[in-house]
Amino acid sequence: MLFEKDSFSGGVPEVHVGPVRFGGKKLVLIAGPCTVESREQMLELACAAKEAGADLLRGGAYKPRTSPLSFQGLEEKGLELLAEAREKTGLPFVTEVLDTTQLETVAAYADMLQIGSRNMCNTVLLRKAGGCGKPVFLKRGMCSTVEEFLLAAEYVLREGCRNLVLCERGIRTFETGTRFTLDLNAIPLLKKRTWLPVLADPSHGTGVSDLVAPMARASVAAGADGIMVELHANPKKALCDGSQCETPESFFEMVRSLRAVAEAVCRTL
Amino acid sequence: MLFEKDSFSGGVPEVHVGPVRFGGKKLVLIAGPCTVESREQMLELACAAKEAGADLLRGGAYKPRTSPLSFQGLEEKGLELLAEAREKTGLPFVTEVLDTTQLETVAAYADMLQIGSRNMCNTVLLRKAGGCGKPVFLKRGMCSTVEEFLLAAEYVLREGCRNLVLCERGIRTFETGTRFTLDLNAIPLLKKRTWLPVLADPSHGTGVSDLVAPMARASVAAGADGIMVELHANPKKALCDGSQCETPESFFEMVRSLRAVAEAVCRTL
Amino acid sequence: MLFEKDSFSGGVPEVHVGPVRFGGKKLVLIAGPCTVESREQMLELACAAKEAGADLLRGGAYKPRTSPLSFQGLEEKGLELLAEAREKTGLPFVTEVLDTTQLETVAAYADMLQIGSRNMCNTVLLRKAGGCGKPVFLKRGMCSTVEEFLLAAEYVLREGCRNLVLCERGIRTFETGTRFTLDLNAIPLLKKRTWLPVLADPSHGTGVSDLVAPMARASVAAGADGIMVELHANPKKALCDGSQCETPESFFEMVRSLRAVAEAVCRTL
Amino acid sequence: MLFEKDSFSGGVPEVHVGPVRFGGKKLVLIAGPCTVESREQMLELACAAKEAGADLLRGGAYKPRTSPLSFQGLEEKGLELLAEAREKTGLPFVTEVLDTTQLETVAAYADMLQIGSRNMCNTVLLRKAGGCGKPVFLKRGMCSTVEEFLLAAEYVLREGCRNLVLCERGIRTFETGTRFTLDLNAIPLLKKRTWLPVLADPSHGTGVSDLVAPMARASVAAGADGIMVELHANPKKALCDGSQCETPESFFEMVRSLRAVAEAVCRTL
Repeated sequence: MLFEKDSFSGGVPEVHVGPVRFGGKKLVLIAGPCTVESREQMLELACAAKEAGADLLRGGAYKPRTSPLSFQGLEEKGLELLAEAREKTGLPFVTEVLDTTQLETVAAYADMLQIGSRNMCNTVLLRKAGGCGKPVFLKRGMCSTVEEFLLAAEYVLREGCRNLVLCERGIRTFETGTRFTLDLNAIPLLKKRTWLPVLADPSHGTGVSDLVAPMARASVAAGADGIMVELHANPKKALCDGSQCETPESFFEMVRSLRAVAEAVCRTL
Repeated sequence: MLFEKDSFSGGVPEVHVGPVRFGGKKLVLIAGPCTVESREQMLELACAAKEAGADLLRGGAYKPRTSPLSFQGLEEKGLELLAEAREKTGLPFVTEVLDTTQLETVAAYADMLQIGSRNMCNTVLLRKAGGCGKPVFLKRGMCSTVEEFLLAAEYVLREGCRNLVLCERGIRTFETGTRFTLDLNAIPLLKKRTWLPVLADPSHGTGVSDLVAPMARASVAAGADGIMVELHANPKKALCDGSQCETPESFFEMVRSLRAVAEAVCRTL
Repeated sequence: MLFEKDSFSGGVPEVHVGPVRFGGKKLVLIAGPCTVESREQMLELACAAKEAGADLLRGGAYKPRTSPLSFQGLEEKGLELLAEAREKTGLPFVTEVLDTTQLETVAAYADMLQIGSRNMCNTVLLRKAGGCGKPVFLKRGMCSTVEEFLLAAEYVLREGCRNLVLCERGIRTFETGTRFTLDLNAIPLLKKRTWLPVLADPSHGTGVSDLVAPMARASVAAGADGIMVELHANPKKALCDGSQCETPESFFEMVRSLRAVAEAVCRTL
Repeated sequence: MLFEKDSFSGGVPEVHVGPVRFGGKKLVLIAGPCTVESREQMLELACAAKEAGADLLRGGAYKPRTSPLSFQGLEEKGLELLAEAREKTGLPFVTEVLDTTQLETVAAYADMLQIGSRNMCNTVLLRKAGGCGKPVFLKRGMCSTVEEFLLAAEYVLREGCRNLVLCERGIRTFETGTRFTLDLNAIPLLKKRTWLPVLADPSHGTGVSDLVAPMARASVAAGADGIMVELHANPKKALCDGSQCETPESFFEMVRSLRAVAEAVCRTL
């Protein structure tokens, strides 16, 4: 399998998104709003992310909501705002693509395509994304085993994509004290089996803002190659998932504490 | 919500696929191979299904396989064989659509579009399928709650589709003695909350052929409006999921036993 | 292993509790309150159970409650009331034993000792109960596999007990629409592997009173050798688990519908 | 509730086992064999644990095995060997008690009583252990929520015990790449709700020896007050759970890396 460490005779590929290298000594920090809500919100959070040391921006333009009555995202308008934020901060951005028919549009704006947890088993999307020439950010399905996660990655790799990053984002369990159970065991398990970089998303993984910073630190200590975090200037007013967001202030604080843990495991941030 | 019983002032819609009525006194039986493998296989099983009393045929032309190295289906050739089987038996067929770009092709052949477990959260596909004019067969996500299942159905209903059928097909649990845990609790729970017909798929739901017949009987006793079963003439040689298939002979036997249970709960088969 | 069908050269043992045979053509019905609350309640429900056709009474005297602030049962006084109910109705009773130090007391009153879900892995209790000479009713652990359930049974069998009955009572999953997920797949899976009788408890297994009757019917159709059900004259006032109780009236109705399903699968009730 | 931070007007209790303080700035390290197998093994590992910096020894004398055919522990002989190891190293030890009838014997030898995952809901044992005057080490049930874990702790606290320590040890999920899913989210969640110290057991929590060190580091980064680890001189020959053991050499290495992470989160080791 292409995801395996010994499948490249000349050494495993380096994974890049523009100037940002994933999987090296330096950890990668991705931050931004769950959902792009407005120009003002997006630019404010992008600047805060940049200032705190983020390497990439994130933000949802097309949202896979459980209910059809929930806000479904600003769509192409959201992509434009993400592009404006990139211009302002110099940071590339990753955003989710929900369907193959959106692929061309999203790829025209984004630096990296996210395939979300709900689409990890969408083999048609995995293939088309893998063949479109853009870096891909693949999140673990919320009920997928690590083995299935690697096989989903294989779908992307077989289409030629090498700039592929995996992300643990929480699985479904019986526990009700958190929204999902961020499964950090998956990080060393994945690192053992694959050369692909592995990030963690403690915002979605826990769904509880008080848990984001400690679980981000734990992710780094477990060997993650970076962290994806959701920001919101005013979490209580977020249109989506406010309860799991960091404010720019708490994010700044979190990054400082992450740096110390990174150094303890011989990484930098 | 449109899935609720009291959302239609003039009475809830009747659900039909051609002449087949779902949700009435008579249970609906859907049978056929997991995957369309060849003309000979498809026609043989279609005739066996018909003879045993099936109301619809099933068969996969586009398959959502965990590994990219597994057989992915005959694609449009598979749809042609399903259409030929329909012509030969007079039975309409349901087949899975994996992606919005396949929708037009699949809809050109099929009588009913299946949205599989791995796509239950694919809101773009739910919407496009709901708006294409064809009946939809929606399977429960393997890690989706009953509430989320109903909200996925709502995506389909809001696009105008009324010929929508739900199907419980097994959830992920810690149990390793079965492939999935067919969750029959979902059947009375769904019937309590929605007017939509509810079927059960004991083949995928258990992944163990010895369990298919007793769990089919249990599904009917729990209130299911019908059963979807996988057949294979020679399960050991199946290209996909052979361990959970019925042979035509065991299927015939199973239908006989289902009929008795159906009558015990005032239904017919 | 002693739980296996071929481990007894002279044919597998018959399982009895007094005059009641488990695992034969006739299904066994166990009914009674979750918790013994008072003399009046116990006697009223025992008579209702008897009238509806129950073969054994159930009722908790020692209760394994999640919180130390919850009612923990009437203890020995509860056992006395159960014995009085037995005298009045002629029905034997099963009641839970929580700890080896209670074993002698409980065994002095009860016809059958229940080892509950929370104690299925309590190997010391399994052994002592298996060696005390009384029939044992062993419930599946709420996070135990079928394989582990059989090995727990083996602990009991190895101490000499042959009057052992297994009971599926619901497992922990991510689903929140029910309290537990009654796993009916376990019934045919157990029946395939063991000669031990297998009952189902749809009251605890679902935690939703509207689901008890359909899941009881489904259990019988799946091959269960009987059903354990909770009754309460006034479920809203129950000291424990009222939301999953049947009233004597609904129980009477349920038994009637169970009888039809039993006949459909060549059993009687 | 007594587990809550504001339930003690004079400040929350300090938790001690002899000279070892739990929940302070200094992390607590508990190490030793899963099962006490022989005098030689116990003393060798106890010395290795001591040398690497362990604060307490662990070792199972009474083992809760899934199968009655598996080795069940050396019982009182095991306790004697643990006492000898204590004498030799000066380190106190914790060992599991499976049943109330063993309590007196185990308490006569042990410095701290472990109530294991399979007994977390054993309310009789929780109470008796809480009232016997010894410190208690309570492991989370493998299918218990954090809320239920706290209520189990409450049973112990209400009997007067204040030297109580909680331990996350992995939950049951669908993932098959690890034996259990060590749920580190539980650590910050518990620390938020209770004054009780919280440790993590990455050996049982993962069941994979390669994952023990990264998950131990992650536990500390998540805020754990210490770590419990299993050692074995020759894991391949262990009588129980060898696949999850550290050798004395790998343990020594692990402690060094833990120290760096501890300092990064302002703790010591």
